[in-house]
Amino acid sequence: MTAPFRPNEKIIDFRSDNTGRAAPEIIAALAAANEGTAAGYGGDEWTALLQHRYSEVFETAVRVFPVATGTAANALALAAISPSWGAIYCSEQAHVSVAEVNATGFFGGGSRLTLVPGPHGKLAAEALGAALAVAGTGQTHRSQPAAVTLTQASDLGAVYSLDEVRAVTAVARSHNIKAHMDGARFANALARLRCTPAELTWHAGMAIQLRRAGQVWSKMRFAAAQLLAYVEDGLWLRNASQANAIASRLAAGLRDLPGVAPLAPIEANEVFVKLPVAVMDGLEADGIRFFRRPGDIARFVCRFDETADEADALLSSLQRHLATAR
Amino acid sequence: MTAPFRPNEKIIDFRSDNTGRAAPEIIAALAAANEGTAAGYGGDEWTALLQHRYSEVFETAVRVFPVATGTAANALALAAISPSWGAIYCSEQAHVSVAEVNATGFFGGGSRLTLVPGPHGKLAAEALGAALAVAGTGQTHRSQPAAVTLTQASDLGAVYSLDEVRAVTAVARSHNIKAHMDGARFANALARLRCTPAELTWHAGMAIQLRRAGQVWSKMRFAAAQLLAYVEDGLWLRNASQANAIASRLAAGLRDLPGVAPLAPIEANEVFVKLPVAVMDGLEADGIRFFRRPGDIARFVCRFDETADEADALLSSLQRHLATAR
Amino acid sequence: MTAPFRPNEKIIDFRSDNTGRAAPEIIAALAAANEGTAAGYGGDEWTALLQHRYSEVFETAVRVFPVATGTAANALALAAISPSWGAIYCSEQAHVSVAEVNATGFFGGGSRLTLVPGPHGKLAAEALGAALAVAGTGQTHRSQPAAVTLTQASDLGAVYSLDEVRAVTAVARSHNIKAHMDGARFANALARLRCTPAELTWHAGMAIQLRRAGQVWSKMRFAAAQLLAYVEDGLWLRNASQANAIASRLAAGLRDLPGVAPLAPIEANEVFVKLPVAVMDGLEADGIRFFRRPGDIARFVCRFDETADEADALLSSLQRHLATAR
Amino acid sequence: MTAPFRPNEKIIDFRSDNTGRAAPEIIAALAAANEGTAAGYGGDEWTALLQHRYSEVFETAVRVFPVATGTAANALALAAISPSWGAIYCSEQAHVSVAEVNATGFFGGGSRLTLVPGPHGKLAAEALGAALAVAGTGQTHRSQPAAVTLTQASDLGAVYSLDEVRAVTAVARSHNIKAHMDGARFANALARLRCTPAELTWHAGMAIQLRRAGQVWSKMRFAAAQLLAYVEDGLWLRNASQANAIASRLAAGLRDLPGVAPLAPIEANEVFVKLPVAVMDGLEADGIRFFRRPGDIARFVCRFDETADEADALLSSLQRHLATAR
Repeated sequence: MTAPFRPNEKIIDFRSDNTGRAAPEIIAALAAANEGTAAGYGGDEWTALLQHRYSEVFETAVRVFPVATGTAANALALAAISPSWGAIYCSEQAHVSVAEVNATGFFGGGSRLTLVPGPHGKLAAEALGAALAVAGTGQTHRSQPAAVTLTQASDLGAVYSLDEVRAVTAVARSHNIKAHMDGARFANALARLRCTPAELTWHAGMAIQLRRAGQVWSKMRFAAAQLLAYVEDGLWLRNASQANAIASRLAAGLRDLPGVAPLAPIEANEVFVKLPVAVMDGLEADGIRFFRRPGDIARFVCRFDETADEADALLSSLQRHLATAR
Repeated sequence: MTAPFRPNEKIIDFRSDNTGRAAPEIIAALAAANEGTAAGYGGDEWTALLQHRYSEVFETAVRVFPVATGTAANALALAAISPSWGAIYCSEQAHVSVAEVNATGFFGGGSRLTLVPGPHGKLAAEALGAALAVAGTGQTHRSQPAAVTLTQASDLGAVYSLDEVRAVTAVARSHNIKAHMDGARFANALARLRCTPAELTWHAGMAIQLRRAGQVWSKMRFAAAQLLAYVEDGLWLRNASQANAIASRLAAGLRDLPGVAPLAPIEANEVFVKLPVAVMDGLEADGIRFFRRPGDIARFVCRFDETADEADALLSSLQRHLATAR
Repeated sequence: MTAPFRPNEKIIDFRSDNTGRAAPEIIAALAAANEGTAAGYGGDEWTALLQHRYSEVFETAVRVFPVATGTAANALALAAISPSWGAIYCSEQAHVSVAEVNATGFFGGGSRLTLVPGPHGKLAAEALGAALAVAGTGQTHRSQPAAVTLTQASDLGAVYSLDEVRAVTAVARSHNIKAHMDGARFANALARLRCTPAELTWHAGMAIQLRRAGQVWSKMRFAAAQLLAYVEDGLWLRNASQANAIASRLAAGLRDLPGVAPLAPIEANEVFVKLPVAVMDGLEADGIRFFRRPGDIARFVCRFDETADEADALLSSLQRHLATAR
Repeated sequence: MTAPFRPNEKIIDFRSDNTGRAAPEIIAALAAANEGTAAGYGGDEWTALLQHRYSEVFETAVRVFPVATGTAANALALAAISPSWGAIYCSEQAHVSVAEVNATGFFGGGSRLTLVPGPHGKLAAEALGAALAVAGTGQTHRSQPAAVTLTQASDLGAVYSLDEVRAVTAVARSHNIKAHMDGARFANALARLRCTPAELTWHAGMAIQLRRAGQVWSKMRFAAAQLLAYVEDGLWLRNASQANAIASRLAAGLRDLPGVAPLAPIEANEVFVKLPVAVMDGLEADGIRFFRRPGDIARFVCRFDETADEADALLSSLQRHLATAR
């Protein structure tokens, strides 16, 4: 194949999980699944096994619907648990609100996101309770509270503790609304909390439903094979731990840099810090890649295959440019 | 006809414009229109005349689409000026947000309301500008700014001045989004501002479009006849002025009552005041009807046929119960 | 008020029920309801009485939701009884299919009309059964059968007999789908069948549900007052009988005109006949108004206030122009 | 990885393209793309190259949007070229109509499929013209004609010739509606017609637009890499030709079997024949896999890696069971 032209530039990439490679185990699983014929649209053996394995992993009977994107997963799940006249409560920084266009309302026939404040990109249980208290449940002119959605880890890299998840779901239960978790960095949160998937989800009170729209794959075995490989031998947690470890290494290093404080606790694989523009320019000149957010915020995301050397290179570059900037 | 049973209770009603009678001129217009046959679905002479008269009233060519409710009018207009991936900016207290279920998102295929702060139920031009500055226009993952909607008078009874309308529409224009006015108490605002409909709308920068859905009436002449009667000989402004005058009378009276301050300037026909529950109970016992809002807020709405005696009765009852409550 | 200009042309109008006047009793009821204040949004005494009276008329507890148009009534009812992945079966000539844009799919979030053949604008029970037999119920790739809708009287003026309604609803019941009746000319059908509303609806097996969208009127008493007057002292059936009688008079007259056969039995207040274009031109030149449909079809609709003289004038004009055309 | 249990049964699989393997070249391309980091959401080098390569292949500037399923591709494309009040014309057997639930209406906000007859699962240009002639374009009560969609090859395995495509798009152009091609078996049709992609699409008059919803992949390079490998060195046409060749071999063999006639010309990789149930049972007992359709129809689909020996085994089994059944 004509390979795409790739500039021979040596960079250190902290932009996103999404810029990274797939775990080699996932690619190997794809190749292994490409053997013989198999029924389409989820009637194959891999998809059957998938239900079994994820039910084991979550310690309860679950039904897994592979979809193409996180946006589709969130929008379809929220459409399944909210009527078109429903209000869905989320953090002011939630990915469903700030980065998924209007997918929730589109798939939900008009269902609506209602923003709830809280620290570090998390939704606070008390603020949720306060919002629900004045929501006008049962009044025919008001959007009717239907669900709350948590992003775990939060969009600022903080992790809901088990107690925080329990507090939110308790409020949800007492107001008779459903709870949904956007598991964007679910494995990173698990690796952080050292708890089980069950403890973090249905033990803590989740109600999960899903439905589909343009998301039933014909050659489903290739989706199933990837998801099977993902949990096999703890691959997901091992990779998440590695990513978290790099983030922790950065956190430790940042503590020694005066005047550089993370915006939120570094509890998963993301680091948000406010930096002078000149410093961000300096990092880039050193070949370091990351995302800039409004307000001179730099976001560094650690991948499973990010190395300690790369983290140290970032810290060293940062120290140098901060010294100059001062 | 078997008339409904109506308790012979004498009450003074400040609940809403909606509890009041239609202007007798409107009913007379309905009876007058009930003569001979006329083409259906808007092909009749009344509907043709309606376009002509409202174009005169607004001093520009307008197209009038009679719809059944204010919710339908707002939702259809906003659906016409926002794509399904659009964000529509409104005041935190806007009727479209707090009292029309999810009609905006439902009619708009998922379009979304984004709340903007401001004083007295109004959206502030500066806050709109600040929100638009970080909205991520052109970023494919973000809801795209499409429109701003103003409620005139606001849902707390305050009136956008001509300068305020101009400031908001200037921000809208500079960000290339459309502006829409929910004219819920439009006549009351006009009566207050002593300006023309043109000055308050398209002279000030409005872009208005509409479309329909389940709202094309067959016997349209009866809708058109009402709307024609509404503007005939200044009926709408005369009635609005009368309602505003009663509200002003209440405002003047409230100034003499220590410790009773309206929540927002009384600029149209609505009065919002915080009152002890015992005082509200006392008013009701005196036969005065009004709506209670969360936070011990009482809302009094003045209709065109509300009398000065009724306003004075309210003030006197209020004075008496406040004295007792102290 | 400036009355619209109405040409002083003497016409005989067979265009539509919609071109006609409201029954004077309805206008009188509107005027009578315009007394004192009343709670908005359906909290008034008229709306309460409406539930009571219609429950009496239908001999079972019903809930009445006044909406602005027939399109809204159909679309909201069908949205209430079909999921967004549902198929709704209707006649090939059904009004919901040929004259309500895509309202069913719009209000239903994508729900779909499936056309079923049958005579005279009616859906045949056997054809419905055949369609349901191959519909793929339970197959995840197929639209799922949800409901059947009947237009009574049909869009060609034929009336479903009680046995025909029972046959369709029996098929619906046996396939576990809901049944809905678009009562476009319901009173005309009742007047024809000399049965009760109950016999024609829930006795025959209907399941009726409704919901709303932009259709909760604030001054609901004016809607309720009209619907109350409509059934008071049998006004609806009396007016429908008068309209049907004019149509029967036309039917009798047409039997004496060689070569002029109605497209469907004249069982309600509509007459469809194929006529030479020259004859239709002649009728119009005589001041007779009606609608032309593709294929040289003329539609004549009889209103409650259409007179025997007007019917005779139509027949006489028709006879004269047919003689010339031959 | 724990491999799924696969019964050691030797079968010959004619069920669907979807039961087959991915071309090994595609899997190899996935593995090759898993190198280094790359911008997410389509900002990578593979996606850039994809635009370039497909523009070459189609001999015009195209924009390629990789989506997860054919249903999503169809629904999004049709939503892009039809307003929510539009009618989309398709064959009575079209996949969008019979096998994609209500995806068209759901993504299109209520847009509607209108069925058009034609031979062998194809839509006939004349029938389209006849339907458009009575569609009521411009009438506000009618669904407005917006687009026509062709399935190439048809859902019965027939191929639209270049002349047929031109005839349909000419009708579309003359009625000012857009044309869309569901390229479900596009490569098979190309291989059959020995024409270029350009000739079969925009040279023949196609207007193609697309938009997205929950379909912007983060690690887009993996989608792009597959689509690049698909056209590299003519892989798609080579594989399609091999599949077609097997189908032709079956077609030739069927001609020698008395009383077994295909339902439609075998022009791509699908074969539909009516067979006695006992014969279908016999084939299955011989380890041959295929799909049964209502009306005792058997569908055989030939994959690129189906062998001549497998085709011959099917023919021989068929001959044997037909002899017995007679």
